[in-house]
Amino acid sequence: MEKTRFIESTCEILKQLRECSPLVLCLTNSVVQPITANLLLAAGAAPVMLCDDKEVGELVAGGATGAFLVNLGTLSEAQAQTMRTAVEAAGARVPWVLDPVAVGALSLRTRFADELLKKKPTLIRGNASEIMALAGFGASARGPESTCGSDAAVEAARKLAAQSGAVVLVTGAVDYVTDGTEVFAFGNGNALATRVTGVGCSMGALAAACLAVAQTPLEAAVANALIMGIVGDIAAETARGSGSFAVELIDALYNLSENDVRARARIL
Amino acid sequence: MEKTRFIESTCEILKQLRECSPLVLCLTNSVVQPITANLLLAAGAAPVMLCDDKEVGELVAGGATGAFLVNLGTLSEAQAQTMRTAVEAAGARVPWVLDPVAVGALSLRTRFADELLKKKPTLIRGNASEIMALAGFGASARGPESTCGSDAAVEAARKLAAQSGAVVLVTGAVDYVTDGTEVFAFGNGNALATRVTGVGCSMGALAAACLAVAQTPLEAAVANALIMGIVGDIAAETARGSGSFAVELIDALYNLSENDVRARARIL
Amino acid sequence: MEKTRFIESTCEILKQLRECSPLVLCLTNSVVQPITANLLLAAGAAPVMLCDDKEVGELVAGGATGAFLVNLGTLSEAQAQTMRTAVEAAGARVPWVLDPVAVGALSLRTRFADELLKKKPTLIRGNASEIMALAGFGASARGPESTCGSDAAVEAARKLAAQSGAVVLVTGAVDYVTDGTEVFAFGNGNALATRVTGVGCSMGALAAACLAVAQTPLEAAVANALIMGIVGDIAAETARGSGSFAVELIDALYNLSENDVRARARIL
Repeated sequence: MEKTRFIESTCEILKQLRECSPLVLCLTNSVVQPITANLLLAAGAAPVMLCDDKEVGELVAGGATGAFLVNLGTLSEAQAQTMRTAVEAAGARVPWVLDPVAVGALSLRTRFADELLKKKPTLIRGNASEIMALAGFGASARGPESTCGSDAAVEAARKLAAQSGAVVLVTGAVDYVTDGTEVFAFGNGNALATRVTGVGCSMGALAAACLAVAQTPLEAAVANALIMGIVGDIAAETARGSGSFAVELIDALYNLSENDVRARARIL
Repeated sequence: MEKTRFIESTCEILKQLRECSPLVLCLTNSVVQPITANLLLAAGAAPVMLCDDKEVGELVAGGATGAFLVNLGTLSEAQAQTMRTAVEAAGARVPWVLDPVAVGALSLRTRFADELLKKKPTLIRGNASEIMALAGFGASARGPESTCGSDAAVEAARKLAAQSGAVVLVTGAVDYVTDGTEVFAFGNGNALATRVTGVGCSMGALAAACLAVAQTPLEAAVANALIMGIVGDIAAETARGSGSFAVELIDALYNLSENDVRARARIL
Repeated sequence: MEKTRFIESTCEILKQLRECSPLVLCLTNSVVQPITANLLLAAGAAPVMLCDDKEVGELVAGGATGAFLVNLGTLSEAQAQTMRTAVEAAGARVPWVLDPVAVGALSLRTRFADELLKKKPTLIRGNASEIMALAGFGASARGPESTCGSDAAVEAARKLAAQSGAVVLVTGAVDYVTDGTEVFAFGNGNALATRVTGVGCSMGALAAACLAVAQTPLEAAVANALIMGIVGDIAAETARGSGSFAVELIDALYNLSENDVRARARIL
């Protein structure tokens, strides 16, 4: 049964993150670097953030990084070049995540995301607007926030996965994971997460960490959706607002047990 | 009576921030991006931060952003160019805030602030040293901190407002708002805010959010002073130091009610 | 007796940080800027972060900054140039700290750290891998994390101090301080600090703040090790995970008393 399989693979990934502490290169935007690093550390992974083109190439080519993230949040021409370098150095050896922040709303990144799509990301994580725009469904995002619910993007996600070969994760009130054939839905998580900058972006980084230790990209995407959704549920139980929610979220991930995953997973 | 008018316009702005969730472009320094985004999200606004010149021009020209912030904290030549692009694209259509961090202490930004001043910012927020330097009173700031109390800058603020056409907000133990004719003083707030990086800079960002929904720049500046001062008062009641103060501040803004504004406003 | 001397000099430095509030320029990586600024503010110091080459030169040459930090975490060619400018402007007048993040793991920064070493940093802070690499012991770091305990780097630290003229601080489960002749060991601190991004990097910044007010670089390094170790101990007593640990750490530093230092110092 899918439910049991996903819960067990998620527990195994959680365990591997802590035992192997994979090095995860995050090529991400400047706003979310601290929370991204702190959530990866809380999960057991080892984040590394660089901006020099040569250093990025050296790290990825050297095989030290288990996976990496490409997040377009504060894209510049220089950073786009560094991202190209990472993707070239990775070849088919190192899995990577594309997080197409605000694609559809701004033209430089929309073109660049199309370019990256041809380089075969292993996993794509976005909100509904971003996934619809990337799939060519002509969505109109509004900055980094989605203008519609994740339900609206399920068909776009399935098409994007089928065409690109990537597993696609659409995040929202319900998270959807698809490999282009099947679609799985996950109901954990709390709306407070949309009031803390970088929770979505950190999810892309955690997806990369999961890829570094998972058996398959599908299991990595599922683990990512379950883990972040469940820690959102736990954090919301004690948070008194969006400030304490951010602190509780990190604590919840630091303390997350396999039993929490088994007891709380909402696979729809 | 002014007091009642200001309290009611502040309550209305608070309500509008949550109902309209204005998109606010923050061209700000790298140190304060996370807290700036988190405070705007807690207030109900939708922050967006970009660094590419073309994307900034596209966003502002496209009319998506309700207002924007120009904060000189970690100014570079490239960022100055992006700020020029935003200001040109805005024309007289999109209101914007100038936060002249450390102007007076460093010459590149002092010259650039003078250049920006001619482009007619809608609102200027600074500490006493910065406002005095910008007004040509020859203050000697000490990095990003003020070397004197806000009282010392009232005359400079009034002159700056009269000459530039901007509403000026001087922040300190007492916050002053002036349109060049009248000066209003606000007594809320706690000194712990000066021990958390980015509270002042986030105030500039919240000023932009208020501009996006306010009837007048004067009401936006007043709402900004009252809201940030009151959440500072609330946060200080439970904070155990500057670390928990930052968390409580965000929670307080997230939970701020119109009744809190009415009960706590200290209009002097 | 050394113990008493170190405790008294640390108490004096703590007092001076709060009374003099030294301006500390942090040329540091983009990930850790917020926590670095917040920990310096909690200690009483006044952080300033700039990225423009001319502004950095102007600030250091003008004598406003009491000390500065050079942290290689997200090094770029442009930032390397700014760091050269700061070091040249400092001459022998302004003390500075070198934090050789991930040196040994990446070649650009390894070469640049060697170049900086010839410019006579006052104090060097690193983990075991970084200090061993900088001393030419051929360590293989793994991104920003050390691959061995601090004990393994004691001999490398002593050699590095003797050759460079800098006081060297190796941080880890035990912190070691050496001037090239004597080695002192400090046992405070908690492993949770390794699960929060920027605690180590902030320690380099606090070392610079201590240099700005200390009688000698050795006393500054000792105060740095004791203060950060003790606040780590205090924070760990109430933290519920790595998220709340970060908040508690800042609160603990904000509230740290001389009596805490006297009661808790673990000089081995």
